[in-house]
Order: sequence, then C-alpha cells, then structure tokens
Amino acid sequence: MGVGTVNRIESFSDLESPAVVDLQPQSHALAAAPAPPPSETHKVPLPQEKPALQAARERLGEVFFPDDPLHQFKNQPLRTRLFLALQYLLPIFKWGSEYSLALLKSDVVSGLTIASLAIPQGISYAKLANLPPIIGLYSSFVPPLIYAMLGSSKDLAVGPVSIASLVMGAMLRQVVAPEKEPILYLQLAFTATFFAGVFQASLGLLRLGFIVDFMSKPTLVGFMGGAAIIVSLQQLKGLLGIVHFTTSMGFVQVMKSVFDHKSEWAWQTVVMGFSFLIFLLVARHISLRNPKLFWVSAAAPLTSVILSTIVCLAFKAQNHGIKTIGHLEKGVNPPSVNLLYFHGEYLGLAVKTGIVTGILALTEGIAVGRTFASLKNYQVDGNKEMMAIGLMNMAGSCTSCYVTTGSFSRSAINYNAGCKTAVSNIVLASAVLFTMLFLMPLFYYTPNVILSAIIITAVVGLIDFGTMLRLWKVDKLDFLACLSAFVGVLFVSVQMGLAISVGISIFKILIHVTRPNTVMMGNVPGTQSYRNLGHYRESVRIPSFVVLGVESPIYFANSMYLQERILRWVREEEERVAKMKESNIKCVVLDLGAVTAIDTSGMEALAELKKTLDKKSLQLVLANPVGNVTEKLYRSEAWDFFRSGGIYMSVGEAVAANSTKVTYDY
Amino acid sequence: MGVGTVNRIESFSDLESPAVVDLQPQSHALAAAPAPPPSETHKVPLPQEKPALQAARERLGEVFFPDDPLHQFKNQPLRTRLFLALQYLLPIFKWGSEYSLALLKSDVVSGLTIASLAIPQGISYAKLANLPPIIGLYSSFVPPLIYAMLGSSKDLAVGPVSIASLVMGAMLRQVVAPEKEPILYLQLAFTATFFAGVFQASLGLLRLGFIVDFMSKPTLVGFMGGAAIIVSLQQLKGLLGIVHFTTSMGFVQVMKSVFDHKSEWAWQTVVMGFSFLIFLLVARHISLRNPKLFWVSAAAPLTSVILSTIVCLAFKAQNHGIKTIGHLEKGVNPPSVNLLYFHGEYLGLAVKTGIVTGILALTEGIAVGRTFASLKNYQVDGNKEMMAIGLMNMAGSCTSCYVTTGSFSRSAINYNAGCKTAVSNIVLASAVLFTMLFLMPLFYYTPNVILSAIIITAVVGLIDFGTMLRLWKVDKLDFLACLSAFVGVLFVSVQMGLAISVGISIFKILIHVTRPNTVMMGNVPGTQSYRNLGHYRESVRIPSFVVLGVESPIYFANSMYLQERILRWVREEEERVAKMKESNIKCVVLDLGAVTAIDTSGMEALAELKKTLDKKSLQLVLANPVGNVTEKLYRSEAWDFFRSGGIYMSVGEAVAANSTKVTYDY
Repeated sequence: MGVGTVNRIESFSDLESPAVVDLQPQSHALAAAPAPPPSETHKVPLPQEKPALQAARERLGEVFFPDDPLHQFKNQPLRTRLFLALQYLLPIFKWGSEYSLALLKSDVVSGLTIASLAIPQGISYAKLANLPPIIGLYSSFVPPLIYAMLGSSKDLAVGPVSIASLVMGAMLRQVVAPEKEPILYLQLAFTATFFAGVFQASLGLLRLGFIVDFMSKPTLVGFMGGAAIIVSLQQLKGLLGIVHFTTSMGFVQVMKSVFDHKSEWAWQTVVMGFSFLIFLLVARHISLRNPKLFWVSAAAPLTSVILSTIVCLAFKAQNHGIKTIGHLEKGVNPPSVNLLYFHGEYLGLAVKTGIVTGILALTEGIAVGRTFASLKNYQVDGNKEMMAIGLMNMAGSCTSCYVTTGSFSRSAINYNAGCKTAVSNIVLASAVLFTMLFLMPLFYYTPNVILSAIIITAVVGLIDFGTMLRLWKVDKLDFLACLSAFVGVLFVSVQMGLAISVGISIFKILIHVTRPNTVMMGNVPGTQSYRNLGHYRESVRIPSFVVLGVESPIYFANSMYLQERILRWVREEEERVAKMKESNIKCVVLDLGAVTAIDTSGMEALAELKKTLDKKSLQLVLANPVGNVTEKLYRSEAWDFFRSGGIYMSVGEAVAANSTKVTYDY
Repeated sequence: MGVGTVNRIESFSDLESPAVVDLQPQSHALAAAPAPPPSETHKVPLPQEKPALQAARERLGEVFFPDDPLHQFKNQPLRTRLFLALQYLLPIFKWGSEYSLALLKSDVVSGLTIASLAIPQGISYAKLANLPPIIGLYSSFVPPLIYAMLGSSKDLAVGPVSIASLVMGAMLRQVVAPEKEPILYLQLAFTATFFAGVFQASLGLLRLGFIVDFMSKPTLVGFMGGAAIIVSLQQLKGLLGIVHFTTSMGFVQVMKSVFDHKSEWAWQTVVMGFSFLIFLLVARHISLRNPKLFWVSAAAPLTSVILSTIVCLAFKAQNHGIKTIGHLEKGVNPPSVNLLYFHGEYLGLAVKTGIVTGILALTEGIAVGRTFASLKNYQVDGNKEMMAIGLMNMAGSCTSCYVTTGSFSRSAINYNAGCKTAVSNIVLASAVLFTMLFLMPLFYYTPNVILSAIIITAVVGLIDFGTMLRLWKVDKLDFLACLSAFVGVLFVSVQMGLAISVGISIFKILIHVTRPNTVMMGNVPGTQSYRNLGHYRESVRIPSFVVLGVESPIYFANSMYLQERILRWVREEEERVAKMKESNIKCVVLDLGAVTAIDTSGMEALAELKKTLDKKSLQLVLANPVGNVTEKLYRSEAWDFFRSGGIYMSVGEAVAANSTKVTYDY
C-alpha cells in the first residue's frame, strides 16, 4: 500500500486518453488539492428521462437476457448469421468441424470408462425409482446421444441420477404401488419424465433459468446429504437380504423395519454385500486421494458386477438365498409414446412429479456442467443447457427412458479420463447399445446385493461434511438452513425436505429485506468519507448530526420497520447526547447509498419520517440516492418535502451544507 | 446551496463537544485541506469480533424487537415496573386514571354516532358472510368492549368489516352450503373466528407482525377495489329483488345470473333500493367534501333504515314483493363455546379460513389504527394491537361473534366525531346492547334492499382510483401488480385474487434480488466521489479502470447472474476502449457499498470472478465493503484472493493505489 500521491499523478499523466475529455481538470484537481472540500454542493441530477417503453425493454433485457445472447450476431451478414444460429442451436456444428482423430482417441477412452460405471449404475438407479432395471439401461442410451448434439458442456456424462430417481420413486409410490400396478406406474414415470422435459425446456426457452438458483447452496448441501442417507438406508434391504421391507422412506420406519425383520437377514448376502461395499469404498478412496487413479473407482463397479456374477454362477447362489437380477429382455429401447398418460385422475401427480424431478435434475445438471466448465475455462450457457436437458427428457420419455441429467460422479470420471467433447457420450451410448444387444443374459446371475453396494458408494459422495463445517464457521444461519433441510429429508419426507430447503432459501431473502440493517455512521478523519461507527473504529461522530446508513431497498415489507428503527436511533442518540452533555441533535442525515430501490410505501415512509422529525424540530436530509430512487422520489409526493435543500450528493456535502444552518437556527 | 467553507468551519468551532475527542483534528483537516487526497490508504478493518451468542441475540433483537419494548422498564424499581407492565398489557390503566368528564362527553357523542352506523352495517355484513343478521349485532357488542380494555388505538371503531366477511363467506360456502346446513355453517364460522384470533394473537406474541406487511400497498389497493366490486355486485340480488341468485362470486357468473333472472326483478324493490342508494351516496359525498358534516353520512344509514321500515310498515310492503328482515331474537349474545368445532373433516377448512380472514382483518385493523394515530401524532404498537385484536376474536368466538376488526369507515367517523379514547367503543357496545334488548322487533319490517344499499355505499370507498392513477405515474410495475390483484378477484375468485396479491408482492422482492442493478461509475470532477455515469452526467471514466457498482446483496439467487453480468460489462468496456483507441483496461474496481450482505455462494462468485479476470490479466479489487461483508469475506476462502491489496475503504483509494501499479505493469 502506501502509494504516494506524486507517483499516482505521474501515472495519470502517463496515460493517454483522448476520449475522456474531462480527464485533465480531473488529474489537475487531484494534483493541486486532490479532493476539494464540499464547499460547493453538487446538485443531485435526475437520470436521463427514458420513454416508458424503452425503460421497460431495457429492464426486461436485464432480467431475461443478462448475457446478451444475440451479441455475436450484431453486424454480421445474413449467411454468417444463419450459420451462427445453427451453431447456437446445435453446438455439435461448432466443434464438429474441428473434430480430429486425436480428440476421438481421448473421447473413446473416457466414453468406455464411464460406460463401465454407467451400466451398473443405470440398473441400480432404476431400482431406486421402483422401475425395472432395464429402464435404467434404456435411459443410458438415448439421452446421451441427444445431449451430444444439443449440449454445450464438453464434460457432462448424461444418464439417470440418484436424487431424481429417489424423488420420482418416493412421489409416485405415495399414490400408486409399483408392485400392484406396474403398468400404470411405468406410464406415470414416463409421463412425469415428459413433463419434466417440457418444464425444463420451457424454463430455458422463457429464459427463466434463475428459478433453478432458488435453492441456496446450504440447503442443497443439507438436502443432498439427507437424501444420500435415505438412499443408503433403503439399500439395507438388498444388503441384508430382507424380503419384507417397508416402502416408507423415513429414517425411523426404515430402521424399525430393518430390526423387525432381523430373522430375514441372510448371512450369505450380508457377507457378499459388505465385502463388495468395502472393496468399492476403498477403490473410491484411492481415486479421491490420487485423481490420476480415477480408473480405479471407475472400473470398480463393473469389476464387482463381473466378480459377483461369477461367484453366484459358480456357487449357484440362488439356492443360498442370494437374489439375482434374473432375466432381462435383449434389444434396444422400445417406443413408449403410447404409454404417455395425458388424462385421468393421476395426471396431476405426473405433472407434479415431473416438475419436482425436473427442477432437481436441472439443478444437478447445470451445477455439474458449470463446475467442469470453469475448471477448463469455457462457458456453459444456463438457458441453453436447460433446453438441451429438457429436449433430451422429452425424447427420452418417448423411448422408454425416465428422468436423466448430467451426473456428478460420472462427469467427474469423464473429466479425469480426459474427455474432450460430447463424443464421449456417443461412445457411452454405443457401449450401452452393445450391452443391450448382446450382453443381457450375462446379468442373469448378477446379485441384487451388488447393486445396493454400488448405490451406496455413489451416494456417500453427496454427504459433504467439509461444506457443512465451513458453513458453521462462516455463517451460522446458513448452517441452520443446511441442517433443517437435512433433518427434514431424514425424519419427515423427501418432498418435505425439499420444500423446507426452498422455503428457507426464500425466507432468508425475505427476512433480510424485512429487517434490514441500519447503522450509525461517522466521518473517517482526514477524508470526506462516512462509514459505520461499529466497523471503522477511527471514525468520529459529527456533533449535532445523526448520520444513519440504511442498508436495504425501502419497500412495503420494511417501510414501517425502518421508520420505527430510525426514530429509535434518533431517540437513543438524543439520550446519549443528553447524558454526555454534548450539543443537541439538530439534523438527521440518511445515507441512501445502499438503498437501491424504493417503492410507493417507501416514499410514504420517508415523507412520514420527515413530518415526525419536523415536529421534533429536527432536520431530515437525504444523501447519495441512486439513480432510480432519485427518479421515483422526483415523481412522488415525497419530493415536496425534500426538493429544497433536502437531497445531497454525499453525506459530506449534506453535513457541510447543514452545519451553518444548524448553528444559526438555534 | 453554496455554503462556503469558512462558514462551515466557523460553525464547527462554535459547537462545544467535549465528548467527541477527535473533533479538533477533524475540523482542522476540514479547514486546511478539507479532504486530503487518498495518498494514504486506509485499512479496511474487521468489525469488532462478537461472541456468536451475543451476535445472534443482537440480530434476533433487531428482527423481533426493533422498537425495544422493554426500553421504559430499564432502571426502574420493581413497583414501577409492575405498574408499567400492567399498563403495557391493559392500556386502559394508562389513560383510565386521567379520564375526565370532558373526555366522556366527546366519547359519548362519537360512540352514539358510530352506533347509528354500526347497527345497520353489522346486520348487512353478517349477510355478506352468509350468517344470520343477528350475528352481526352480537359481533358489534362483545368485541368493542374487549378492545376498549386491550387496544392501544384511541380512534379504532371495532366490529365486523366487509372484506373479512366476504372472504369468510366465500371460503366456507365453497364447502358447506349455509342454506342446507345452517348449524354446521355457524359452527365453522365461529371456529374460523377462534382460529383467526389464535393466529392473530400468536403473531403478536411471537412478534411476527411483519407478516402483515407482506401485502404491498399496490396489491392491497387492487384487491380491495376488486373485492368492493364483487361485494357490490352481490347486492344486485337484494337491490333488484331477485330470488334465484347464483352463489358464485365471479363477475361473469353474477352478471349472467342478473340477466337470466330478469323476470324476477321487482320494480317496487328496484325503486326503493335505488332511491335510498342515491340518498346514501349523496350523504357520503357531502361528508367527503366537508369533513365537518361527517354526521350526514354517519346518520344516513340509520335514517334510511327507519324511513324504509316506516314505508314498508305503512304500505304493507311484504305484500308487494319487498322482502324484509323478519323476526329477530331479543337478548344478549348467547355463549357459543359449545359450537366450536375441533375435530372432523371440516377442521382444516375452519383453520384455513381463520388464518386468511385473520390476516385480512389484521391488515385492515392495523392500517386503520396507524392512519389515525399518525393524524393525532401518537404511536400504535403493531404487535400489541395484534394481541388485542386476536384476544378480542378469541373471546368473540365464544360469545356468538364472527371475525371483527377496526373498520375504516366507522373509525373515520369516530375520528371526525371527536372521539378521545376507546370509551367510544364502550358507548357503541352499550347502544348495541340497548338495541338488542329492546329494539329488535322494530327491525321486523326493515326491507333487505336497504341493507344492500348500505353495503354498496360502504364499499365504494374502497375503490381507490386516486392511488391507482398515482401508481401508474410513479411506478408501472406497481400498477401492474395492482391491476393483477384487481382482475384476479373480479374474474377468478376472491381467494385467488388474494393469492395473486401476496404472490406478486413477494415476487417483486425476489426479482429485485435475483436481477440486481449493476452500474458503471465515474469520478465526479473535483471530488473523491464515484457515481453512476448514467445518473451524474458530469462524472468521468478513469482511463484503464472499470469501476462497477453492485446494487444488491450478493446471494445464491444472484451470484451466477452477477458474475456473468460483470464479465459482460468488462467485455463491453474493452470493446468500447478498443474502438475509441483509449488505453487498455487494466483494473476492475467493484464498489460494494450497496452490497449489504453476502452468503457463501456470493463469496465463491467473487473468488471465481477474480480467477477469471486474472486469466485475462485484469486486476480485480473491492472497495467499500460494509461491516458484515468484510467479516464474512475474512472468514471465507475468498479472503486469500483479496487480502494483499485487494480491498480498499473507498473507490477513490482503490483507484489511487492501483494507478501506479497499472502503469508499471505494462
């Protein structure tokens, strides 16, 4: 620090800047008397008046097109524009033309690696959603192909994911039992997938991507952690070989069910399950410690499947109480358009399930896409991703797939395996196709217990103790939000946990707006700056003045509160002054620098405050209003109260202008 | 202004301020070189570390006890404390001891005036809620007595009100038809009233009063306007003498019903109804034009009732198709505790109706109380009012009353009639008691049509075109919110209109947080201040710098947006600079003065931004962080990116400290 004035001035005159006309007087002012005292008071101007339509268009542009997506189309000939549009809609045309053999090699390696993980995970996750295992494989075939054409992430590995599978299973099971009405259940699952896709694509199309942001990270961490535990507990059924297991998801019911059916625990299943679970967890740990050994955890699930299948085949496991997957139909995805369910009593359920799983899938997919994009330093367009994932699910619902998105675990392995483009998804799909066509009989002897072990290994990564600890350290309220979501999922229900998460996130915003901070400010000696007395301890009060900073927009939701709070500040300050025998308070300055918006109630509150303080013979002046607040004040009735000498550009000027008045008045 | 420096300095030295130790160097600095250039850079300090518990207690205090209600108890002997507590709980002890005959005289006059309005209105509003007319009288007797003891407003006239009656009627009728199951309907009405009271009292007790603020004024105006029209349209039944009228509330259905039953229109009813309606509206208009003639509109309803009753009696109106109220039971409120309904299938409905009408009643009661308190310059304690209104409704539900609150029209007349204390409510109750005991037979011949005319006259005042026009001028978005609530009530349903109102109010807050303003700032020549270039047109860009103001907390809900938006600003500025051939951008300064809070996602976004700009060889520095943002940054990982020369007290210092660096680096 401590850069001297002279140095700085040199640097200013070094710079050439023909366009900035006023620079010379500026640097001159800085050189001679760098910041003149506020002897002249600056008028607070009105922002340039804009026609209502233009203002509305600009505001809508900020809300819906913050990234200015048409930026690259400007000043381009029509041909180029058309080509750019094609590239925009189908990113495959962007990277496809530059695709090379070297890239293909990397993509084949990473594609095969994720396939070895995706096949057993696909089968397992389908079971989480109470669907036949084959649906999990179908869902690992069509969606990756579609994403490869539409998606803008190079690292996303697409397929079924645990949380969305769990939530879909939980929501549908509440109404329809998959064991009793398997066809209806399947219909509803495809229909929910269809609506999830429609919802996702419309969010992207309407550029409402910010809805996905409405789950804050703390609540997301809590929700995922809770869901991971719920999923793991569900696996106790397979891991212990229990036959009569609860269909409930609650922690208490599941634990009760586990111990009530102790007699059903099968030691052969338990031994096999826990052995492979330990194997998988160790493999995961090795890859975590050394990312170069990513292939260890990538290959472990398929290895476990093969090993356990061989073991079962060799020992005729089905005779020892170890349940296996059994017969799986060969062949590619059958069409399922005819299964979509667009009327009848369960339509509402399907739509609701679609929207909830759709949002969850988007949240995961976009977060994963962005994470790896930032590691490789390229941009992922949120709205475009939503359309890609949405179209993928719509297409999926017509080809026997259920909700899919970018999976965190598989994308991480894809990234570590050195994938270069979305071609790795095509390789993945090809490997799945090969499996579906030729390898299905091999799964006949694969024990269910191994699927449980694979699921547990996949979801333990979702329990993020590190972040929880950090939240505790940095922000207790965030930690509480995280904990509530966690407890909600675990002890109430998955849906309730989700509702709690979103509710708390929104409540946090609202409480900040309803009960904003107000701070007492003082002058930082030797400057014209006024800062929070509690923050800058060197800052000093100006006698006879109360300088208050309002740290929030002034809204209907807080205008009453702010009015009362400001009056209380004034009352307390008067009491303090009386006790210390300092000179009486004569002027209250409100620093509106952080008041970034005001509504009609807010302006009424200011006028009301002015009147109340007037009755106490106290002057109320405003300092540093931002553009749109100035504009609204000007157009409102509150303007009458402040227009003559009530609004200043800065607190310094307000204090300077009113200190003479203050002395003469009394 | 143009107050000279010398003047100001004089005034400063005139003031005596022994307590503010640092004042002398301060005024000296102002005198010699009033604001030295930021050649020395001020360290951004950490706010004083507080133990987590104390910080939490202070924050909770700000949220729940902003008015510091125990303030008056501090440093008082126990006896005084007890007496103060009694006065706090039962304000009647506060003003009761100073009560005089002069006050009584005023209160008797105003009490009798509002009684003459309250009796016909009570009967009419009960019909709005589909309740027997006598319930309206009961509800004008017990609640005013209770409010007189507990309430802190001197002007509130308590009783049934139109909006809450309408909403209760609409919500209960959806499930239970009052014609078919009158007893059940009555039970549900009392139970809903009970829960309304419990809800209101708990809001007050838990100091959650701000929940009432969650309906913004624009949506409230829209909702009230729409509800007033719905109520008026419902009165067409009585006004036209239609027998078979729709039970629906929708605009379309009601108009259809009116014209479908044209054959039922009775000319005698129509003539009588419209004559009295015109009489009442003219009386209302006279009082509006000249508030001293308040008694004209106050006495008009009772006059109409008496006149119309005499007419009906004289002409044997029942023989001419004019329906009259008929027999009303004499006597005071019967107990209704036994009618409360605490289990069974309709409990949920009763609770829901109670909460909705309870909130509506509170909103009206508190707004009315505050309006008149500010006219007479005394304070109404929101939380205490909630408890008073809540207890009043709980007691009411046990004595055959339905939801009551402070009514706007009657309170206005109370105020104009010169009421001094809540004794006017006791006078009102006495007058109602007298009516119930002795005058009930007189209502036998009162025509229903007159009640319709009274209701219409009462509710037209709720349609507030003036405010709507002002909203259109000041804030188009607020106007849109108002219009949506209005249209929602009118064409969808009352409940939906209410939901739309609250939804829009909350959405407005959220959209502001999700898509905050970012502005490009420049130096105001001759000062150290940096302001929005679009607002202060004299301000100039500093070559090689991009100074951006972020006008919102940085949250999970906007951290992605802000990151993208800031990068776009930088990109656009680089393009502009390249076009104008100015010197290259080398440093980005973020003015965090309006960033009043930050969460974990926000800090990650800052760190992310720093990394992205680093890759472009751009320096990112922060200026003017507020206390809690500094504190959180310090405790987070983002601190590593900024601690060495990345955070400054003001934009001016940040620019000064980095301009040398900028020149030497390139």
